[in-house]
Amino acid sequence: MKKQDSLYMQVYDYYRGLIESGKMHNGEKIPSIRYSSAQLGVSKTTIEQAYMCLCDDGYLVPRKQSGYYVSRRAEQKKSDSGKSTQVVKNRIVYDFASSGVDSESFDLSLWRRYVKSALRQTERLLSYGEPQGESELREEIALFARQNRNCVCDSSNIIIGAGVQSLLHILCPLISERKSIAFSDPDYIQGVTVFSDHGFKISKTFSTADIIYTSPSRKTRWGETLSVSERFKLAEYAASSNKLIIEDDYGSEFRYVNKPTPSLQGLSGGENTVYLGTFSKLLLPSIRISYMILPPELNEKYREVAPVYNQTVSKADQIALCSFIRDGHLSAQIRKSRKLYLQKSKILCDLLTENFEDKVTIDKTDSPLFVKASFKTDISLSLLLNKCEKEGLAIIPISGKTGKTEIAFSVSAISTEKMEKGVQLLKKFF
Amino acid sequence: MKKQDSLYMQVYDYYRGLIESGKMHNGEKIPSIRYSSAQLGVSKTTIEQAYMCLCDDGYLVPRKQSGYYVSRRAEQKKSDSGKSTQVVKNRIVYDFASSGVDSESFDLSLWRRYVKSALRQTERLLSYGEPQGESELREEIALFARQNRNCVCDSSNIIIGAGVQSLLHILCPLISERKSIAFSDPDYIQGVTVFSDHGFKISKTFSTADIIYTSPSRKTRWGETLSVSERFKLAEYAASSNKLIIEDDYGSEFRYVNKPTPSLQGLSGGENTVYLGTFSKLLLPSIRISYMILPPELNEKYREVAPVYNQTVSKADQIALCSFIRDGHLSAQIRKSRKLYLQKSKILCDLLTENFEDKVTIDKTDSPLFVKASFKTDISLSLLLNKCEKEGLAIIPISGKTGKTEIAFSVSAISTEKMEKGVQLLKKFF
Repeated sequence: MKKQDSLYMQVYDYYRGLIESGKMHNGEKIPSIRYSSAQLGVSKTTIEQAYMCLCDDGYLVPRKQSGYYVSRRAEQKKSDSGKSTQVVKNRIVYDFASSGVDSESFDLSLWRRYVKSALRQTERLLSYGEPQGESELREEIALFARQNRNCVCDSSNIIIGAGVQSLLHILCPLISERKSIAFSDPDYIQGVTVFSDHGFKISKTFSTADIIYTSPSRKTRWGETLSVSERFKLAEYAASSNKLIIEDDYGSEFRYVNKPTPSLQGLSGGENTVYLGTFSKLLLPSIRISYMILPPELNEKYREVAPVYNQTVSKADQIALCSFIRDGHLSAQIRKSRKLYLQKSKILCDLLTENFEDKVTIDKTDSPLFVKASFKTDISLSLLLNKCEKEGLAIIPISGKTGKTEIAFSVSAISTEKMEKGVQLLKKFF
Repeated sequence: MKKQDSLYMQVYDYYRGLIESGKMHNGEKIPSIRYSSAQLGVSKTTIEQAYMCLCDDGYLVPRKQSGYYVSRRAEQKKSDSGKSTQVVKNRIVYDFASSGVDSESFDLSLWRRYVKSALRQTERLLSYGEPQGESELREEIALFARQNRNCVCDSSNIIIGAGVQSLLHILCPLISERKSIAFSDPDYIQGVTVFSDHGFKISKTFSTADIIYTSPSRKTRWGETLSVSERFKLAEYAASSNKLIIEDDYGSEFRYVNKPTPSLQGLSGGENTVYLGTFSKLLLPSIRISYMILPPELNEKYREVAPVYNQTVSKADQIALCSFIRDGHLSAQIRKSRKLYLQKSKILCDLLTENFEDKVTIDKTDSPLFVKASFKTDISLSLLLNKCEKEGLAIIPISGKTGKTEIAFSVSAISTEKMEKGVQLLKKFF
């Protein structure tokens, strides 16, 4: 077992060893995540990660989520364990392709204080809340969305829900006279599912759809966003062809180095556009609070049915978030994270220049999360990706022409230390 | 202003006075609930209650939930304020008809400790949770449902969601080959809405429906439940006519004085029945945690789509509830509340016997929440109800024959003190 192996890889190897040596048999249940965590003295997340890799590689099967069992295929693995070792090596070690944000920058102890204080408001907690969400929180969100995203809104046309799907379940019946929807990202399966559950046809092109689901703050994986003129064009196109726009502004907070481009909703004057925002990425993935801003005609319709849709976010979380925003912590959190990402981007740029010297040109991006670079090289993009994959290096490919390869790097999930090693490794491939 | 007026009535009268005296005009915004609460030194709930009554009585209109405004109709009210006073008197003062449970019996400080501790599990909170709900919580719920409701389940066929509607949104697509549904309680508008949003036809009778939505623990408003033989009959009927049963076991915890009748799901051996349970009533209405138990064939279908439905309950709440149940507090909470209701029922029975002597017969009910009584009287049920309504007394009418009137009383929301006054008031009407 090599020293630099990450913890979960060590756990992976431990169980792989037990299975390949025949100490654990086909069909046998392996210890629960909780038990393993206690036994091996590592976190549950680490165990979970290892178990998932063991599943991916065919050593284990999850059975009805009651636990993990040694798979039948594991027998086969014994005979060609050389191959499986190679599979293991393909795990991502240097992740320059993460689409997440660095949740660890969140001050959980601060949030804990706010929840604690919310849970002291006994009287408020004893009653059901407003179906639309607590009005005080809606006021704070309205202010936030107006100031940060130029949204046209006030507390009256904002609906709070536990995640974007919960909100789409309310939206779908309001727009049921429209029959088809097209997604700018057809891989957004959670959204596609809700609309097809509600009987909408999923169109492949905007032109054949009655509804356009788009994320202007995430035009590409590597941090490009729709420009103001592109947004105006889209808004005009939608208005003139009577299409409704659903703007999912997920992750917009970190997509802009300078003053962010106003939201489509704002540029449309709040008309003809449903805006979706979420706090899961800003705070913690495990905190499920999102919001939806409705245009006037849909808000009128919503008013009539509001009481029949129960609020899905617990009142304590709503009260906590309200005070958290009001006290300026959300803005502070965004500033702090943005600064962190800009620092990391700067470090990566320096590393690339140091290692590749005149063979690299750094391109400007809109986002503090990404660094885009062109390399002078004769190696093809596919060969490069192949080499990266083999060594556990994940990058975001953009384009490859003769003599020039474009790559993007995400700095969100990777540590500064790993960045350095990752760039050194990348250098070897050129 | 009479001394015995409740706080919210005083607030009501205060604003009514301002409006009727012309100090507040048509279209003027009245202070926000928060501001009024601070200004008048009473709780927000009280202000909210008063504002809602002012709306009901036509003095105020809520405008797009941005606030409350003096209504145009208020002008009219000035001329006949005598009438409006009468309307005020119709407010419920003695509530023997509540369908709620006494949330105040819940130990909020204890729950706070569990949430606080959950929010310390930093590492777990940094990742998205399992779409189905945290497996540890599902294990605890499975144990709870098996022991308390004889449910056939384990952690693998339980799905956690923020309220019953969130769960129905997952269920509907799984049973979309069925076309129509009948509700044992057609007034359960939240359920009806979700099914009609998903394109199901709402049938008026069980016989014409493919799905039966029923609450066997709430056969009537006054605490009657379906007997074991009725349940068996319903389960057999559904199975033989290929109808799916959805059993909403809402509030079952307090519906049984003795050992509760097993759930339909349990009596059906877990087949052909979807079971819905909720913790909102057990803990706090503002805590949104419910669960659904799927029969094997639907669980198989769910497995395939599980990852596309994001979990709606925040992980911290799930972790807190898991430990809360594991440490025995949920069972303790149920025992404590049941004891409280039994005591209150006993007090009410004594009050009725004291006041009505041989004119009353107390009937046994299944539930600690309700007292059922027959009165020897010549007054008609409708006249009695009319008198009760006028004096702010709410009761649950059952039947009225010549010389005999049957009434049920709910003890959940009313205080012991008000019980006494309420019964004395009732006596005057006979």
